[in-house]
Amino acid sequence: MTTTADFAFDTDTACARVGDHEYGSWLSDRWSTLGGTANGGYLLATALQALHDELPHPDLLSASAHFLRPGTPGSALIHTDIARIGRRTATGQAILTRDDREIIRVLATFTDLATAAGPTLVRNTPPALPAPARCLDPLGGVVPDGATIAERIDIRMPEVAGFWRGEPGGTTTAEFWMRFADGREADSIALALLVDAAMPVVFDTGVSGSSTIELTVHIRRRPAPGWLACRVHTDYLMDGFHEEDFEIWDSTGTLVAQSRQLALIPQ
Amino acid sequence: MTTTADFAFDTDTACARVGDHEYGSWLSDRWSTLGGTANGGYLLATALQALHDELPHPDLLSASAHFLRPGTPGSALIHTDIARIGRRTATGQAILTRDDREIIRVLATFTDLATAAGPTLVRNTPPALPAPARCLDPLGGVVPDGATIAERIDIRMPEVAGFWRGEPGGTTTAEFWMRFADGREADSIALALLVDAAMPVVFDTGVSGSSTIELTVHIRRRPAPGWLACRVHTDYLMDGFHEEDFEIWDSTGTLVAQSRQLALIPQ
Repeated sequence: MTTTADFAFDTDTACARVGDHEYGSWLSDRWSTLGGTANGGYLLATALQALHDELPHPDLLSASAHFLRPGTPGSALIHTDIARIGRRTATGQAILTRDDREIIRVLATFTDLATAAGPTLVRNTPPALPAPARCLDPLGGVVPDGATIAERIDIRMPEVAGFWRGEPGGTTTAEFWMRFADGREADSIALALLVDAAMPVVFDTGVSGSSTIELTVHIRRRPAPGWLACRVHTDYLMDGFHEEDFEIWDSTGTLVAQSRQLALIPQ
Repeated sequence: MTTTADFAFDTDTACARVGDHEYGSWLSDRWSTLGGTANGGYLLATALQALHDELPHPDLLSASAHFLRPGTPGSALIHTDIARIGRRTATGQAILTRDDREIIRVLATFTDLATAAGPTLVRNTPPALPAPARCLDPLGGVVPDGATIAERIDIRMPEVAGFWRGEPGGTTTAEFWMRFADGREADSIALALLVDAAMPVVFDTGVSGSSTIELTVHIRRRPAPGWLACRVHTDYLMDGFHEEDFEIWDSTGTLVAQSRQLALIPQ
């Protein structure tokens, strides 16, 4: 029998209650970015698993994370605090620490997306992508230095920006497919990881690093199984600060997640 | 002599330290929306004034607010908590309560925008608007029921969406000018109010209410004095939930603030 415990995402974001509003977790080295620090979306998803355990509603609706220090693999504690539990939504906070140092602080609101009801009016279309089998793996199967997250997530691109081959071309938009490599389907908390799981599009301007300051993700529908279509753009790089807007559409052509992060190019 | 204390924004967002990480404030009835509840941006700006007092850096960089209950005018307490004070940025939290009930919870990061340095690449242009004197006041000087915020903020539009005259036309984008009516120039914290100070563009689809669940604002530069050009759009209204993206450009044609909120149409 296959259970969620067989998937890397579930194993590596698992939180165990160790006290009143206190959880322990082991940050895995399987979700690291270039240089070996933990991916920000992975830290966020781990903190959200603790909050999910405390709140009655099943789906993440909106999470805002401020990133305070780089996260490294190892033992972490997560302290939660409930702000309000209502009939339709519930909001809480999670602080993830390593060695008593705060790594990220998150505010998040949960809901039951299956019971959401109200008007729908969509003014945009999903990314127009060739089938994944007709797209390219930008890494060609080679994992860059320390970036183990590339082994956890499959990316397929119709065209590969120049920076992937060391020739930045100046594009600041991208559209591509994404999924967990081990077949784990996305849910609302997994989407909070995935919106931060690709290389920043700003890398094609010739910069080589970017540190997230703040990331907010809104979950708009429960995702259907299958490949996820992503649309990313950065419109404003100013004084080293840039936003990155990220949309994820599911295999039925429905927007399921929308995020924006503010990040800083290291000097 | 004119001091900032003469301006409504400063008077009405003032916070007095009343204890350790505790501030008192009086929520004014001068920033209310339709029906008389306090504008969300006004609540956010008030909470940010308390954090500003605690953190060493002068400028708001990024704030994320989760809205828990409607705010009404009257006495409020704000509890602050410092997450991290670094050389370049500092992050803290503010919880604004009325009668021991939590109204909003905010995470915010401050910096010194004057010392920001790094690459700049802007892939968009400011709103192309006729001069304010050639634009229209959508309200024609009439303040809608209880919406006192309309007396605090001047808005000038090149064209006025149909819902302003009771005929929703289905547009979900808008560009217009904005400024404080009493001549107060915007600063980083004032921008956090202004991104939430206009009628939601989604009203032109025929809905008549919208409650903010989460709002994140990033301040990209210190604003120059003068009229501010705004660009707003909602692309995705799904099951009653919608985002609203809001940009503010200053009188020199520079992007100064960028926000997104997730809001819910009441059923």
